[in-house]
Amino acid sequence: MSEPSAPIHPDPALPTTDAYAAAGVSIDAGERAVVLIRASVAATRTPEVLGAVGSFGGLFRAPGGSGQVLVSSADGVGTKLKVAIALDRHDSIGRDLVQHCIDDILTLGATPLFFLDYLGLNHVVPETVAAIVGGLAAACRDYGVALIGGETAEMPDLYAQGDYDLAGFIVGMVAEAEIVDGNGVVAGDIVIGLSSDGLHTNGYTLARRVLDGLDLHAHLPTLGPHMTLGDALLKPHRCYLPALRPLLDSPRRGAVKAMAHITGGGIPGNLPRVLPDGLGVVLDPSCWTVPPIFTLIEERGEVARGEMYRVFNMGIGYTLICGPADVATVLSLLGDSGARAIGEVVVLASEGKRVQGLW
Amino acid sequence: MSEPSAPIHPDPALPTTDAYAAAGVSIDAGERAVVLIRASVAATRTPEVLGAVGSFGGLFRAPGGSGQVLVSSADGVGTKLKVAIALDRHDSIGRDLVQHCIDDILTLGATPLFFLDYLGLNHVVPETVAAIVGGLAAACRDYGVALIGGETAEMPDLYAQGDYDLAGFIVGMVAEAEIVDGNGVVAGDIVIGLSSDGLHTNGYTLARRVLDGLDLHAHLPTLGPHMTLGDALLKPHRCYLPALRPLLDSPRRGAVKAMAHITGGGIPGNLPRVLPDGLGVVLDPSCWTVPPIFTLIEERGEVARGEMYRVFNMGIGYTLICGPADVATVLSLLGDSGARAIGEVVVLASEGKRVQGLW
Repeated sequence: MSEPSAPIHPDPALPTTDAYAAAGVSIDAGERAVVLIRASVAATRTPEVLGAVGSFGGLFRAPGGSGQVLVSSADGVGTKLKVAIALDRHDSIGRDLVQHCIDDILTLGATPLFFLDYLGLNHVVPETVAAIVGGLAAACRDYGVALIGGETAEMPDLYAQGDYDLAGFIVGMVAEAEIVDGNGVVAGDIVIGLSSDGLHTNGYTLARRVLDGLDLHAHLPTLGPHMTLGDALLKPHRCYLPALRPLLDSPRRGAVKAMAHITGGGIPGNLPRVLPDGLGVVLDPSCWTVPPIFTLIEERGEVARGEMYRVFNMGIGYTLICGPADVATVLSLLGDSGARAIGEVVVLASEGKRVQGLW
Repeated sequence: MSEPSAPIHPDPALPTTDAYAAAGVSIDAGERAVVLIRASVAATRTPEVLGAVGSFGGLFRAPGGSGQVLVSSADGVGTKLKVAIALDRHDSIGRDLVQHCIDDILTLGATPLFFLDYLGLNHVVPETVAAIVGGLAAACRDYGVALIGGETAEMPDLYAQGDYDLAGFIVGMVAEAEIVDGNGVVAGDIVIGLSSDGLHTNGYTLARRVLDGLDLHAHLPTLGPHMTLGDALLKPHRCYLPALRPLLDSPRRGAVKAMAHITGGGIPGNLPRVLPDGLGVVLDPSCWTVPPIFTLIEERGEVARGEMYRVFNMGIGYTLICGPADVATVLSLLGDSGARAIGEVVVLASEGKRVQGLW
């Protein structure tokens, strides 16, 4: 992200799909914006800024020569907000944000230190703000992150009645020598996938269009008896820190060559961000089951399977890459976290896709 | 801000005034929200978090035992955005945000390291996004701040056509021993004020209501011949880092006992944030001239003078407090920056106001 050659504002929130464009999210414009801002952003680079193949976080050498690197990320939760607003349930959207941000910097091997939020809204309803910030704080507490700042801005001329936007900012840390940067990935390495807990925080503009007309309070047979459609859509973004911690704390940490957080853009949009040039992956979708919420969207919206994979996580929310000899060790350290081998790194054919096998 | 007893989300953006409430910004609700979230935020406190009297930034001990403290802040630019949108001039709003954030952490004696932004919008117009981020980047470059991350989120269901919201996150650093925390302030100390460059980023909801009906492209006699009303309203938030740098870099740095950034809530809402309990200030408004843009708002809106001071900076954007024997030295180090003594620290009468003399 901080490399002059790599885009800041990589905009995984802007996946490149037709149905998404039809739902009102424009893609080419996002790419053009990235091109326009690249030089001005590169001009701000200071000697403390490090580049890395992965662009899930900004890297800045900690002051004082400690060998530590600060890893930071800014994010929002997209229009999952509109589901929370429609249901008037605001206690989990803050958790989504914190857990999304933790996962972003986790891909570089960093563990989180502190968090700040920004809440823009029509007007302050104290109980709503308390629920939103309470969700942020609960997630921070769960993962040992200090919530040390925030801004709430009432802007009745910008936000419609009841609406709000929520952004978060996280700072974590990793020893410079232990940054997970994807540089060591070679053909034949294995991709390990960890299961997601639903849509997480991406694809909601499309999902909401497709599901428009359904009652959020309804129990749909496909989602099982214990969960309404609203429950399924509001399931919090899974935080992968607990699953990864034993691995990152172990002497075998170095076995992990690359990690990716599967956010907007899905597996095809995120996994390649941590691959060296010229490499791709072939995935075997028979290795995992696509959860029913995705199938519901796919069938009701008649969305092409390939497009589903480019918009949604489709059941895999986080990936790791390691050498074939380390797979058993890595899976063992990941324990009972829904981790399994789902594919292999390959040399790209000259015109090949970076991710193959999904459609 | 990080003290359990001090509010996170102190909401200087929510000044406590009648006209502001009439303009759609609610106050008591903001205070109630702060009360509701205080305990949940306090529960996230970790051993690395430091408290300080001033709440303009969150304080977190840098890893590695370097004696350095990371100082961070999250902020927006309020409905100054709507002026930029109305004029379709987006190249300075990013500068506003960066400079506001630098000033916030500067009050603790910190200098900035890196910055990230969040941009939520209806849809990406590449030239608009490039102008916004270009403004952020230009300000970052001017002050040696690395722009190392950002998120752009298209949310056509949340933002009206042409609208956007912009939030920023800054991280800076200060040696723990050199944190400017206001603890040493005593009665008889002198308040030094630095001039502002217009409204900065606060009070725009009220200002826009009062000025509604005027042509933003008009040259008003009171604003002089070289500036339209739109120019006056879009003047960037002044960054006080260049003015403060010689002082902070000098051996006399310790003479500065407290600093405050005059944002939403004006002088009465911000100066007391860095005063020990039981102390207030008496200011002499004859020490500075209120710039014409404020007088225009005051007269056209028939806004009471006291309320003007509680909403706007009224010409003073930043304050320092030092002992009377150090005033000459401090003013000398501040050089030609529009700094002057504007008041004195006093012991509060039991029911006294924290800031006196303004109305």
